[in-house]
Amino acid sequence: MKLAGQMPRSERVALNRVNIRDDFWSYYIRLVKDVVVPYQWEALNDRVEGAEPSGAVRNFQIAAGQAQGEYYGLVFQDSDLAKWLEAAAYILEADPNPELAAIADGLIDTMALAQREDGYLNTYYILKEPDKRWTNLTECHELYCAGHLIEAGVAYYRATGKRNLLDIVIKFADYIDSVFGAEPGKLPGYDGHQEIELALVKLYEVTGEERYLRLSQFFLEQRGQKPFFFEEELKRRRGQTHWAGHADHVDLAYHQAHLPIREQETAVGHAVRLLYMLTGMADVAALTGDESMLAACRKLWDNIVDKQMYITGGVGSMPQGEAFSFDYDLPNDTVYSETCASIGLIFFAQRMLRISPDSRYANVMERALYNTVVAGMARDGKHFFYVNPLEVDPKACGGANHKFDHIKTVRQEWFGCACCPPNIARLLASLGEYIYTVQGDTVYAHLYIGGEAELPTSGGKVKLTQTTDYPWDGKVRFEVQPEGEGRFTLALRLPDWCPEASLHVNGVEVKLEGAVLQDGYIRLARQWCAGDVVELKLAMPVTRMYSHPLVRGNAGKVALQRGPLVYCLEQADNGANLYELVLPRKAELHAAYEADLLGGIVTVQTEAVRITGSDWDGGLYSASPRLAEQPATLKFIPYYAWANRGEGEMMVWVRER
Amino acid sequence: MKLAGQMPRSERVALNRVNIRDDFWSYYIRLVKDVVVPYQWEALNDRVEGAEPSGAVRNFQIAAGQAQGEYYGLVFQDSDLAKWLEAAAYILEADPNPELAAIADGLIDTMALAQREDGYLNTYYILKEPDKRWTNLTECHELYCAGHLIEAGVAYYRATGKRNLLDIVIKFADYIDSVFGAEPGKLPGYDGHQEIELALVKLYEVTGEERYLRLSQFFLEQRGQKPFFFEEELKRRRGQTHWAGHADHVDLAYHQAHLPIREQETAVGHAVRLLYMLTGMADVAALTGDESMLAACRKLWDNIVDKQMYITGGVGSMPQGEAFSFDYDLPNDTVYSETCASIGLIFFAQRMLRISPDSRYANVMERALYNTVVAGMARDGKHFFYVNPLEVDPKACGGANHKFDHIKTVRQEWFGCACCPPNIARLLASLGEYIYTVQGDTVYAHLYIGGEAELPTSGGKVKLTQTTDYPWDGKVRFEVQPEGEGRFTLALRLPDWCPEASLHVNGVEVKLEGAVLQDGYIRLARQWCAGDVVELKLAMPVTRMYSHPLVRGNAGKVALQRGPLVYCLEQADNGANLYELVLPRKAELHAAYEADLLGGIVTVQTEAVRITGSDWDGGLYSASPRLAEQPATLKFIPYYAWANRGEGEMMVWVRER
Repeated sequence: MKLAGQMPRSERVALNRVNIRDDFWSYYIRLVKDVVVPYQWEALNDRVEGAEPSGAVRNFQIAAGQAQGEYYGLVFQDSDLAKWLEAAAYILEADPNPELAAIADGLIDTMALAQREDGYLNTYYILKEPDKRWTNLTECHELYCAGHLIEAGVAYYRATGKRNLLDIVIKFADYIDSVFGAEPGKLPGYDGHQEIELALVKLYEVTGEERYLRLSQFFLEQRGQKPFFFEEELKRRRGQTHWAGHADHVDLAYHQAHLPIREQETAVGHAVRLLYMLTGMADVAALTGDESMLAACRKLWDNIVDKQMYITGGVGSMPQGEAFSFDYDLPNDTVYSETCASIGLIFFAQRMLRISPDSRYANVMERALYNTVVAGMARDGKHFFYVNPLEVDPKACGGANHKFDHIKTVRQEWFGCACCPPNIARLLASLGEYIYTVQGDTVYAHLYIGGEAELPTSGGKVKLTQTTDYPWDGKVRFEVQPEGEGRFTLALRLPDWCPEASLHVNGVEVKLEGAVLQDGYIRLARQWCAGDVVELKLAMPVTRMYSHPLVRGNAGKVALQRGPLVYCLEQADNGANLYELVLPRKAELHAAYEADLLGGIVTVQTEAVRITGSDWDGGLYSASPRLAEQPATLKFIPYYAWANRGEGEMMVWVRER
Repeated sequence: MKLAGQMPRSERVALNRVNIRDDFWSYYIRLVKDVVVPYQWEALNDRVEGAEPSGAVRNFQIAAGQAQGEYYGLVFQDSDLAKWLEAAAYILEADPNPELAAIADGLIDTMALAQREDGYLNTYYILKEPDKRWTNLTECHELYCAGHLIEAGVAYYRATGKRNLLDIVIKFADYIDSVFGAEPGKLPGYDGHQEIELALVKLYEVTGEERYLRLSQFFLEQRGQKPFFFEEELKRRRGQTHWAGHADHVDLAYHQAHLPIREQETAVGHAVRLLYMLTGMADVAALTGDESMLAACRKLWDNIVDKQMYITGGVGSMPQGEAFSFDYDLPNDTVYSETCASIGLIFFAQRMLRISPDSRYANVMERALYNTVVAGMARDGKHFFYVNPLEVDPKACGGANHKFDHIKTVRQEWFGCACCPPNIARLLASLGEYIYTVQGDTVYAHLYIGGEAELPTSGGKVKLTQTTDYPWDGKVRFEVQPEGEGRFTLALRLPDWCPEASLHVNGVEVKLEGAVLQDGYIRLARQWCAGDVVELKLAMPVTRMYSHPLVRGNAGKVALQRGPLVYCLEQADNGANLYELVLPRKAELHAAYEADLLGGIVTVQTEAVRITGSDWDGGLYSASPRLAEQPATLKFIPYYAWANRGEGEMMVWVRER
């Protein structure tokens, strides 16, 4: 079913159509399947010793009448479980797994029992404040939790064909639709934490029920309209708040509720909320053919990527509000850069790619994925970063200077507010969705990740086998197996970091010029035959990267990047006081694969200088500084791999001269 | 009266013995007399339009039965008025001023009426919580306010010989002495904000009543003893707190109550509290001959000055708790560096100088005075800085990045918490106390400030006339007029910033070597005759200053200093984006007096480089940075004079290459 005016938009690629076999990613995907999802199930059941309890499963059991007790955890605790269930669904979509399916079905049975007669399902309100439903949308994540449950329901249905959770969330969505809307007697509100907007689009996609799309559109359109819903709501609550006791006003910008969505021109407020909102906006714009909504998405995309994004693909420059700050404000040490925000950026990029296959979206998706997202999880799959700094001095953290109180120097087991771990799990478990899109007769390869994919094009189905040692090596090989005529276009992304590329089809070089290059993709339009081989060679030198001159904190500094990977210095390799190191502009940068280090990584070594003051006289200030320059051999490792060898300093941006 | 074991200690120099006539300081002292003190009187009476109301005078009037109404302001509002009264007393001590004396006497009459029968005097508790006296020493500044009242009473008595306020504070101190102590039935506590300790020493000095000294000693010794008084107090209040509603624990280190005073080895917690405590400790150590208490003072002095002090003499590296952070942590932009903390540092330095005339104390006193303290007040005497950053970007302040929320980019009219303005006033009004000390037959000149002084030495009274253009010029001339024999030593500080000095007595050069130099002073021991002239020439080149290599934020950076003055760049002279500027190591630095700029200052000009990216392509990160170097003529102004020409960027530490 297609609505009038709908824009051309790539369909989602089902995960059982993409089989990832990749030296880099298969490790993480196995980790998610074998360790992360089982471990998180234990954590959600409060069975991990030493970790903060979750209460999430137990809350549902209590609401279902299967256990006794009181609600435990934050007001949005349900969402952790929903995200976990969504991750489990993606695992099941790729491969049958009866044991995991049994656990999921058991949990869904509990959820069914917990659901109220009218369809309502939120354990916080059911157990703690049954009379207060929908009275604090500003703070209490009620529709946010609903959104995550809907995403899980859609994912589980897509994975298994079972309607058990889908029917629950349909009943819930129908109830929500009866509560919210512009009609008299309905609440003209929206959630403080965007999420249900993108979830309702998914529900529309699997059910074809237009009401869900329209409800999503309503939530988006309503945002920032006057009178401000959150202000009216606060008045109705007589200033009572969930977190702070009492408040005189609402920080509307924190919730991106300060202006109607089309009038928002710079990214402000809580980063994850904005990115989830933009993901939903891109979906609704495409499905309803709303060009002005799409233009608003593009404007905010540009602001984020051109003015407010760390080189690691992290976003959110300040801990207060886990929020964007202002253009070109990208402090490396007091940064927030929440793992979930980079995941949100990937969602948004994917939705934009489904509408407009332009490498500007895929380049950012790759940057966020290979740097911040992978950094968010330890190689053991059991420890996580919530905040991803680009410069850390452990001496300053842990209360020594309170501006760093949000910075953890080692990954943590679980969080009281546990949004990031299950978010990483669901992203990695569904990584197969992000590699390709198909639009008309064109297959776009956005990410270079080995494995097989079966993709339907307007010119018939095609099987692609991708082989690569990415991100360590820039050679990527595609073997093509078309079904039928084989008239389709293969479009391969030319990454923004790549200074030189070459391409051969069946050993014959294709010049990368003219119409072959479009929107950052190499377009190979031809009649494909079974066994055709495309070989793409992306030169992957170590590159010195510089920041825009308005980025105050990076003036005079350089960062190293090789392929999609941003590099960093760690104390483990380079000693303490990393800020003493200066990288001469002309120093040669040597990349080498080290199989035994951190699971096998390419390191970068170079000769640099350490400016130090071993002969310093002890005073704080001196007119005769007695600073000495010592030669220093530096070793850089990929940023994502930091903090896997104990606590120590880390630094991405290094002084250059 | 002298106690057994008392250490040799300089007497306070009475302000009517020192007549400051100095191009630099007379302006400020006149400003304090003609503008600041009258203006603050208006502010304390809530008569300054646009400024936050104070309520301080009115609170006393209500408590006195002279007005109706409710208590207004913070719990320590009384102290603003006490500090103002102390400043007024210093003005009166230097010069009679019947109008000001009448205002003061009227206020003191009100205070007498407000005082309770038993001697208690604190308008917050009298008006708001009459049954809650001494129940929240941790937070409520009850003894702190008492201390400021005592300081005012002592100052007013010294200034005028009138006992009106002295008798009030004696009655109050006697009452406090009956409440606090180690004896059964007394409270074994001390205040959350140190201040009464140093005040009781002053009361002891003017009354000779040893009980006040012993009470001060008790408060100091009791601090940090177990069981912790603040924890016991919190239990008695069942966790109720003044500021936050409810608390489970007290941050003892914030109050320097985590350890007994002799075991505190690094400066932690609220900076002003620590410095007031150390001032009292130095006094009590000297007066009771307590070497171990003095050793504790020296240890913390060293920690502060060698590891936690900004080059401007500012202390307190973080806004959370207005507090010290940790060794070598001196961020320039998120700094606190409260004006009051530098004033506290000056108090502490003065007390140490009265015990041990060593230039290390006077050098720091000078640094804090000429930089942070003068910076704290605008040249109009009506606008004040509370926080004194060393690097400011107005774009980042005012909520743009919340880590800068404490930074004001222009001086403010008055503060709801108005500790700094009256503190500046009382310090400047008593500046005559800080120039000289006398110990035995030696007159120490610590500060080079023009004027006459009559000083008693063990070799007889001496009149000194100091003439100088300091801090703009390093020539200082002393004319000596001894009374009687004239056998005394004149000791002139050789400032730490001075690379080369010469000295002539009556035109004959004195070699500055050997026994002539001691503890940083040039000692001239001789038989002085009337009209003897000492000419000291301190070379005052512009000097490049460097930070200890462990100061992370200043790595690769230089600050300029000339004489006691630290310099800075302002946007008004150098354009925006100051961080783009790089000062070549070999650039010549030209100092020039500019009579028409900011009241007449020496500026420093130099040829430097601006690294900018006018040709930048718009993206945030680039492998081909297209940065251009442009020549830039820089103009530095003294740090104290910043932010007198509208809002703009400012920077002390500049990149060097």
